[in-house]
Amino acid sequence: MIQRCLALARQAAGRTAPNPMVGSVIVKEGVVIGEGFHPKAGEPHAEVFALRAAGEAARGGTLYVNLEPCSHHGRTPPCADAVIQAGIRRVVVGMVDPNPLVAGNGIRRLEAAGIVVTVGIEAEDCQRLNEAFIHRMQQGRPFGILKYAMTLDGRIAASTGHSQWITAPPARSAVHQLRSEVDAIIVGGQTVRSDNPNLTTHGLTAHGPLRVVISQTLDLPQEANLWEAGTVVFGPAGVKEDFIQHLRDRGVEVVMFDTLSVAAVMENLYQRGCLSVLWECGGRLSAAALQAGAVQKVWAFIAPKIIGGIGATPIGELGISRMDEALILKSGQMRSIGEDWLYEGYL
Amino acid sequence: MIQRCLALARQAAGRTAPNPMVGSVIVKEGVVIGEGFHPKAGEPHAEVFALRAAGEAARGGTLYVNLEPCSHHGRTPPCADAVIQAGIRRVVVGMVDPNPLVAGNGIRRLEAAGIVVTVGIEAEDCQRLNEAFIHRMQQGRPFGILKYAMTLDGRIAASTGHSQWITAPPARSAVHQLRSEVDAIIVGGQTVRSDNPNLTTHGLTAHGPLRVVISQTLDLPQEANLWEAGTVVFGPAGVKEDFIQHLRDRGVEVVMFDTLSVAAVMENLYQRGCLSVLWECGGRLSAAALQAGAVQKVWAFIAPKIIGGIGATPIGELGISRMDEALILKSGQMRSIGEDWLYEGYL
Repeated sequence: MIQRCLALARQAAGRTAPNPMVGSVIVKEGVVIGEGFHPKAGEPHAEVFALRAAGEAARGGTLYVNLEPCSHHGRTPPCADAVIQAGIRRVVVGMVDPNPLVAGNGIRRLEAAGIVVTVGIEAEDCQRLNEAFIHRMQQGRPFGILKYAMTLDGRIAASTGHSQWITAPPARSAVHQLRSEVDAIIVGGQTVRSDNPNLTTHGLTAHGPLRVVISQTLDLPQEANLWEAGTVVFGPAGVKEDFIQHLRDRGVEVVMFDTLSVAAVMENLYQRGCLSVLWECGGRLSAAALQAGAVQKVWAFIAPKIIGGIGATPIGELGISRMDEALILKSGQMRSIGEDWLYEGYL
Repeated sequence: MIQRCLALARQAAGRTAPNPMVGSVIVKEGVVIGEGFHPKAGEPHAEVFALRAAGEAARGGTLYVNLEPCSHHGRTPPCADAVIQAGIRRVVVGMVDPNPLVAGNGIRRLEAAGIVVTVGIEAEDCQRLNEAFIHRMQQGRPFGILKYAMTLDGRIAASTGHSQWITAPPARSAVHQLRSEVDAIIVGGQTVRSDNPNLTTHGLTAHGPLRVVISQTLDLPQEANLWEAGTVVFGPAGVKEDFIQHLRDRGVEVVMFDTLSVAAVMENLYQRGCLSVLWECGGRLSAAALQAGAVQKVWAFIAPKIIGGIGATPIGELGISRMDEALILKSGQMRSIGEDWLYEGYL
């Protein structure tokens, strides 16, 4: 039933920020009598949808939920109270709230009302689903995913700079899917200049993540696919005022920092409520993101082709001089997507 | 039974050159009465060992063999004749002889003697086992395997040149295993200068492949782990005569060409009877090998670590300017070896 909760929760992937993905199922006498999931911030939580669906029948039932029911008044009343009022007899919780200030409060409130609570069912899968939310709560920063695609000889472009395409359509569709599940996509000025990307989900979902450009110089093209609403450009203060006005006229948001840094951008995106950000940038900005601790997970697509030469590679200088000091990735998985391969691992 | 033949045949991996790996099983009334495999060139073929083991009981039996029995007098008499003389009633053959000049002659000789012959059982596995022999017979060149190990960001060394180790011990053991199954290992002068490799199987087998150094300059160290018997250095004619004598005094064979090329070295190794050669060289020689068509298969180890920077990459300049002109690998497989990954595919 917790796995069913996770499947329900996942339906809102990419749309819940800054909230977690939560699904809930109510069972009575072996029959599912209500289901629900949290569709987006400001709307009711999963438990409320499940209780509404079950109606009066919820009394005496068991409620399953992948994350501890909340106990505080946010934009909606506490779910724990709603569960108590509905007469639920038993609650099964996948994992406790990762916010250390509130963890366990929802469970205690349920127990105080005489409800039997079981905690920690399918906990690993629950944590995996909400890894970005957990990271945000515990670290005060968005969860960073670094994505790149390279050839089997480690190149992201030919010596000439030509790079389209490294991977085949199935892998590129997987990227569109990933984009639909994050809250922001980040590129550097160099990617805008050389690739003029759209950074969309290519129609996969109505929801599109915030598109972010980090540029140390604002030496960017007058015309670019990204220059429209839904894009924010982070740059240094005091340069190119005419160009900034040009961007703003197009609906682009421009944020200037006295000292532009990955940390400053991450703080800004955190304040906007981002759970997860996707780094789709070139080697130099990827290296800066890694050095700033803004990458928690790596998605590396590997295309079974060899291009040779001196074309760009995925990660710039990290200041690591010995192989035994390299950044180690853990819990890695490799899977085939079409003819390409995708490595997924954690820093 | 053909799979059993393949398992028997594999026991001699790396020791049969220029012959193929062959195993044979004789069955009578559902019982295996004889088995054998070809241990090395100059010794009897698999069928002979199986017939010897079966003795008189072979009469009326069925003989299984992964490769068509030979019909010519080589260093040993034709196996087809031995099979006929032993009174075998039926022969099951995995695949026909890949040598277009003799293919089918062994089968025809058996059939002419009244033996029922079935051909093409587990043919794909049979071809895979002897892919190097097949290539050698059809192309007149050894089968080339390019092996390299890189980080997840495509580096074979840190910016400083530090490269030990990229992969963990299980992957390095897999390389020792591979070395034990090839007939020659090739490196360039740069690898000798920077890594001073041994290129041994590290005690895995008594058999060690021929160790080959290709050097355009013979600008090589006076002392190196490779300077002993079992190593051959290919270089240009007319340079460094004192150094060449120094190498020969150590037991190293030195072969000089007016025009040193990958093709010339491959022809020499073909004449020596090599079935398969393993390219364990740096990016420049790897690129030359690829451009000369001397690589048929790629083994790419991928370590789940990121080092960044401008360290060496596995393949040098190939003159490919567009991503859609990259060399494509086919029939690729990825498997985990310890914490590392191994991609294996065919050009």
